[in-house]
Amino acid sequence: MLKARAAVQNLPTYDPPLAGRDGLRLDFNENTVGCSARVIARLQSMTAEEVARYPEREAVEVLVAEHLCICRDELLLTNGVDEGIHLLCETFLEPGDEALIVVPTFSMYEISAAATGARTIRVLADDDFRFPLDKVLLSITQRTRLIAIANPNNPTGAVVEGRAIESICAAAPHAAVLVDEAYYHFYGQTVLGAWRERPNLFVARTFSKAYGLAGLRIGVLTGACPAMAMVRKVSSPYNLNSVALACLPTALADDEHVSNYVAEVRIGRERLQEELRAWAIEYWPSQGNFVLFRGGELNQPFIRAMRQRGILVRDRSADPGCAGCVRITIGVAEQTERLFAALHESFDEIGLKQPEAV
Amino acid sequence: MLKARAAVQNLPTYDPPLAGRDGLRLDFNENTVGCSARVIARLQSMTAEEVARYPEREAVEVLVAEHLCICRDELLLTNGVDEGIHLLCETFLEPGDEALIVVPTFSMYEISAAATGARTIRVLADDDFRFPLDKVLLSITQRTRLIAIANPNNPTGAVVEGRAIESICAAAPHAAVLVDEAYYHFYGQTVLGAWRERPNLFVARTFSKAYGLAGLRIGVLTGACPAMAMVRKVSSPYNLNSVALACLPTALADDEHVSNYVAEVRIGRERLQEELRAWAIEYWPSQGNFVLFRGGELNQPFIRAMRQRGILVRDRSADPGCAGCVRITIGVAEQTERLFAALHESFDEIGLKQPEAV
Repeated sequence: MLKARAAVQNLPTYDPPLAGRDGLRLDFNENTVGCSARVIARLQSMTAEEVARYPEREAVEVLVAEHLCICRDELLLTNGVDEGIHLLCETFLEPGDEALIVVPTFSMYEISAAATGARTIRVLADDDFRFPLDKVLLSITQRTRLIAIANPNNPTGAVVEGRAIESICAAAPHAAVLVDEAYYHFYGQTVLGAWRERPNLFVARTFSKAYGLAGLRIGVLTGACPAMAMVRKVSSPYNLNSVALACLPTALADDEHVSNYVAEVRIGRERLQEELRAWAIEYWPSQGNFVLFRGGELNQPFIRAMRQRGILVRDRSADPGCAGCVRITIGVAEQTERLFAALHESFDEIGLKQPEAV
Repeated sequence: MLKARAAVQNLPTYDPPLAGRDGLRLDFNENTVGCSARVIARLQSMTAEEVARYPEREAVEVLVAEHLCICRDELLLTNGVDEGIHLLCETFLEPGDEALIVVPTFSMYEISAAATGARTIRVLADDDFRFPLDKVLLSITQRTRLIAIANPNNPTGAVVEGRAIESICAAAPHAAVLVDEAYYHFYGQTVLGAWRERPNLFVARTFSKAYGLAGLRIGVLTGACPAMAMVRKVSSPYNLNSVALACLPTALADDEHVSNYVAEVRIGRERLQEELRAWAIEYWPSQGNFVLFRGGELNQPFIRAMRQRGILVRDRSADPGCAGCVRITIGVAEQTERLFAALHESFDEIGLKQPEAV
């Protein structure tokens, strides 16, 4: 009888929403206004001939490498960051190995690691979701072959300093250290290029967030040339679609669209955090395009009340340390207005009172 | 020091053309006229909001399943057939296992199998590239966990009967048997649905060939529900891009575009085979949208001569049993005219003479 590998049999089925997300979608950390109009113009100029052809990623990889000021061999375009994570796991992990992650964090690290048969070692974040550097260093063993760090972290918005990342790379030279900078634009700090000192460092970026291209599936995995050569061996040559490849140069050329959007999100993030303070709601300062806060027992009624008002937010209460927590993606100014209106109505509906101003 | 898994270290680097395929491209078995105009119209109607959103494949999977007259749980949309192959290898193969393929064939089976650390057992096709059923049956062992069969086969165009496939499934119930029907439309016969009798059978289809959507990366992997549930565990929820998902229903609705194209290709295939007979060139009758023939020592000069005339054809001389062979993709009538003109000029240039008519 046909049986999957033991590691696959033991995998849970991951079942995220794949349909029916109607409303103002503040649940997936997407760009809430969409990509640059110039990108859409390029997309709309696609011909039947371009679509019929197998994707040719070479020239576009050169452009992206130039944009990031790195060599082409230090970079691989991936079908979203998801594929980059998957490729790293496939390249470095086997049964008996350990993959180290700091929880709560993005779920795909653990899913892709588990598929290889490796054991996931989960290190719980320190108080207030601060990065637990000491515990991470103590958890490194000879079997550690992957350490995945989202920076800023999702869903907490917490960050880790470049120096801490370097010390992890130094302490685990036999492990691939992935720094997932999907939310880089909303933070502004990076370890890109640090693999020249630390050849086991990989950095991932995405065009799904600040650039508003989640639908096109464009991730970037970067690292030292020898390390990337290993990853490239397990990657498929036609992983990126032609529309993504056609649109990417245009997206890179319209820096202004991205920087304007990012600026608005940062203001919205500050405003939401102020608002949560005013309501005495526990939240965690975020460097992403989202804020995590604790609704406690009122979490589920709050999420329902928001949905009734046409706003989707993401329940994170199943994440470690996140009981009763919800994550809200930040959009632009008028969306923040709409969010606040719904927030106030929902708080009212669920019986949450604003404390007296002191 | 960072090291890839042993299986990855041993992998060769696969380096197909990823740029610079200028001319009439008869080298990749793509659709030579492109997709339906209605698909392009749908593509051009994509909005920034649609592009910003994570892909939602559920509703489209329902439609494709209906189109194929199977249940939704029997199907997974994949990022090209390449991803389907990769997922099957990942689900079923581990070091020590055996993957059985009949060579020459499509290269990705061996590449994806090797990445898992499994051993590839290559069974050489019989004379004239006929399917070596007896040798395949004899090569099945307790460690066989994957058997990959392209039907029609690429690059030979040979086919294998449904009954032979069933006997393989029956002889290796512990192995996943993949029948890759990428060229189904040019052949017309299928084992789709036969997994209801043979629960270890998987069938792959693609929208890259007859439908002209290679750039959008749309494969379909089908199989029995329990088997597909295992595969789904290792798959990424956002593997298909939103443009592909938006265009797919339109592509399915325009059956006429596909059937007209397929009819023209079949006529062109017959004409090219006649022409090769007239020139006394060894070729193999094909059920794909391509024909393989042996140029022998004149193969390289022929490929160069064709390129000088703006026509790309694919050298297959490195494939087992294919020394001196070239594969030409068939297009529509006026492309066949252009092909014939270049063919005659090239034959003339390399000094190939047409035998006297008898």
